[in-house]
Amino acid sequence: MRRRGGGPGRGGGPGQGGPDDPDDGPLPDPFGSDEDHDAVEQVHQAFYDAVETGDLDALERLLLGGALGETVAVVHPGWPVLRGRGHVLRSYALIIANTDYLQFFLTDVEVTVSGDTALVTCTENILSGGPAQPDGSAGELIGGLVVASNVFRRTPDGWRLWSHHGSPVLSGEAGDGEGPGAGPLGGPDSA
Amino acid sequence: MRRRGGGPGRGGGPGQGGPDDPDDGPLPDPFGSDEDHDAVEQVHQAFYDAVETGDLDALERLLLGGALGETVAVVHPGWPVLRGRGHVLRSYALIIANTDYLQFFLTDVEVTVSGDTALVTCTENILSGGPAQPDGSAGELIGGLVVASNVFRRTPDGWRLWSHHGSPVLSGEAGDGEGPGAGPLGGPDSA
Repeated sequence: MRRRGGGPGRGGGPGQGGPDDPDDGPLPDPFGSDEDHDAVEQVHQAFYDAVETGDLDALERLLLGGALGETVAVVHPGWPVLRGRGHVLRSYALIIANTDYLQFFLTDVEVTVSGDTALVTCTENILSGGPAQPDGSAGELIGGLVVASNVFRRTPDGWRLWSHHGSPVLSGEAGDGEGPGAGPLGGPDSA
Repeated sequence: MRRRGGGPGRGGGPGQGGPDDPDDGPLPDPFGSDEDHDAVEQVHQAFYDAVETGDLDALERLLLGGALGETVAVVHPGWPVLRGRGHVLRSYALIIANTDYLQFFLTDVEVTVSGDTALVTCTENILSGGPAQPDGSAGELIGGLVVASNVFRRTPDGWRLWSHHGSPVLSGEAGDGEGPGAGPLGGPDSA
């Protein structure tokens, strides 16, 4: 049904869950077209570009508006849930104001379109730097590994971000399918 | 448009983003009915009940199947992205096998239904315990605060989980709208 070859995360094929897999039957809507897939990928990249360049106007345009605007939900790594366009934009303004250098290298980008919704997961390889020091020297550079789940909705103006949830990868290799701990709270303490 | 009174996260009202808010116009589909809202809430609770009671069969039934089954995405706190029903179920089997006691107190549950998709955010107040010690005493109890973004899709058999992303709240009070740090990686170091 998907017109595009499976990505690296789709190699398992059917039946991975064993012969007892319940079959929910065909979904009421097929996977999106190649055009949908490309459009989502572009908006997804535009979202990260807007954060990287500190372009709050672009960011505002990319957030879902209209009736659903107050339900836009964003979780920055380690933060609680922020809900509504206003809260979300203020949080990005705060992050941008406190970051002199910010670069995302996105890997493991997996786009799935189903009807009017798109789910994108990716790994954000982040390089960021704080504000310059009082003596004029550059702020400290910090590298970090964050995984994100991003949900977009189709609107008359294109795909718009409904939900962004980023979280730090505490240990282990992103994308290897094995977490750092076996407990519900993650981390080596719960293994 | 929403038939149900706004939750605690919806008090901001329109215009929170300022007069320059772009208006995406009316969405192609309205908010879901009360029945949709209740059905999502029930499936959302059933998902946490299944994890809490270690009922992998129930969990398997609640995961999205069919054509989208291999795109089901789950992020446990601190873990990388797990993709596909098989990987996801194995991760829950691992968590359940390593946890003798697990209880979720869900707060700040916010359900939004739009067409065939539902977005639910919540705070998971988790109390968990590791396996019993060799001397027979109970394992250590760990409390934790996790925020989750959960996405469900409507299927002929009811709402099914497409994406679950949980992440630890590193500091600050969940739901207060202010994160622990102002940097893109969160945490006090980046403030």
